[in-house]
Amino acid sequence: MPVKVAVIQTNPRLGETGENRRQVLARFREAVADGAQLSVFPECAVSGYGFSDLETARLAAETIPGPTVAALTGVCAESGAYVVIGLLELEGEVLYNTAVLVGPQGMVGRYRKAHLPLLGVDRFTAPGDTGFRVWDTPFGRVGALICYDLRFPEAMRALALEGADIVALPTNWPDGSQNAPEFVARTRALENRVFVLACNRCGDESGFWFFGHSQITDPAGRVLAEAGSGDEIRYAEIIPALAREKRIVLRPGEFELDTVGDRRPDLYGRLVAEPAPLQ
Amino acid sequence: MPVKVAVIQTNPRLGETGENRRQVLARFREAVADGAQLSVFPECAVSGYGFSDLETARLAAETIPGPTVAALTGVCAESGAYVVIGLLELEGEVLYNTAVLVGPQGMVGRYRKAHLPLLGVDRFTAPGDTGFRVWDTPFGRVGALICYDLRFPEAMRALALEGADIVALPTNWPDGSQNAPEFVARTRALENRVFVLACNRCGDESGFWFFGHSQITDPAGRVLAEAGSGDEIRYAEIIPALAREKRIVLRPGEFELDTVGDRRPDLYGRLVAEPAPLQ
Repeated sequence: MPVKVAVIQTNPRLGETGENRRQVLARFREAVADGAQLSVFPECAVSGYGFSDLETARLAAETIPGPTVAALTGVCAESGAYVVIGLLELEGEVLYNTAVLVGPQGMVGRYRKAHLPLLGVDRFTAPGDTGFRVWDTPFGRVGALICYDLRFPEAMRALALEGADIVALPTNWPDGSQNAPEFVARTRALENRVFVLACNRCGDESGFWFFGHSQITDPAGRVLAEAGSGDEIRYAEIIPALAREKRIVLRPGEFELDTVGDRRPDLYGRLVAEPAPLQ
Repeated sequence: MPVKVAVIQTNPRLGETGENRRQVLARFREAVADGAQLSVFPECAVSGYGFSDLETARLAAETIPGPTVAALTGVCAESGAYVVIGLLELEGEVLYNTAVLVGPQGMVGRYRKAHLPLLGVDRFTAPGDTGFRVWDTPFGRVGALICYDLRFPEAMRALALEGADIVALPTNWPDGSQNAPEFVARTRALENRVFVLACNRCGDESGFWFFGHSQITDPAGRVLAEAGSGDEIRYAEIIPALAREKRIVLRPGEFELDTVGDRRPDLYGRLVAEPAPLQ
């Protein structure tokens, strides 16, 4: 059965958590009113991203669950909708760059960004410790990654092997990372045969220009919807069950690919070994 | 120092090994005369690909080293050039879909295709047992993959972690796999920061149309050269040492990516685990 999904490309202001949260709620209500059953927001959608020191970043962080999860849960409980959003998480004294899946019952799952660039608030967050996990929803299994995680094929591969049908990618792609919507996200969708819902932010912040181009791709790597560079919502109808069929059979016995079953994990030991010096 | 590389997009005829080998030699001499220091030929460049039974395939196979390696070695010894070519290998009674690196000293290394589709001669070849290895040359470290291997990110990742600067990809991309030059090969080059020399064949054979579009990409995922759909050679000048710099530093301490060092092998166990049922 088709599921209507949305990427909600917003323009948060650095540290203005109250106003950003109000915007998130308003835009989420708009997508839900348009029939979206699963919406995805950008990374750090309530805090902003480009903090220059730990103390200021902590002031914009929140607990998870916390105020944003509570507010989103209200809308989900009214509507039955689900949402993935990137939040700057404070646990004790420690910051994490986190994505959370929220549904009618409240928080469904939490993912903490595993791959951290030396950039923006990621200079002050702790490396993610949740690993790559998928969560059941009424319309399929959902996993989440965040921004720079996309560049590392291991991350989405791990989610696909856990059974993900849909991978939500809250992101803050700055100018210079146009390769992500141009070809990387499409490759991830294709190689894993999953739907990818990549939601970038837009606008200028802290010296970055975030170029938007949020994108919804299908398991064949086709772009179903792509945003421009402004504050906007894009929708697509997807059939998550298509992600369960990893085989491509053009002619039985003569032209078949089993894109998961043809893997050779017996030869992949190098990927989990201690890194060796390469020079 | 720049190195001139070539992808030599040929059109072998099924089972006509003598004529195909003569063509390979002639085209290789042409590329060497044009200054190519490393050339890449397609997969199964001497045998053809679309065999419908094991016996006929065996008749078109050869030992490695064998006649093709010997002939290529002659040209390499005269010129100092290197070449990667896909060959249908016969070892005892067993067939392998193999790529071989040949230089002035003869065979430098052999790679047997790890990922096998149910398609063409791959229905009759044994799964590759060589793993993913790189070989030293005067201009850098070269690894090889074959065709369908490209779809599995683990393969080129393993080569990059072994230190590959250049990955040669002999391939037989049939109609329907245009995603490979459109976005997959570029993603592989970018995510591993290596040069990718993908050489497809062209022409019709055994009901397949092989669409060409051999492609040379740099470690930023940029296309340096791409062929059309005919029998042709494309060249690029590359600086293999660029593949040794896995870090991208836009502003020191403020905007740095370490595209290998930022990996999280501690979280990648799922990639080498026994596959779990996903339905």
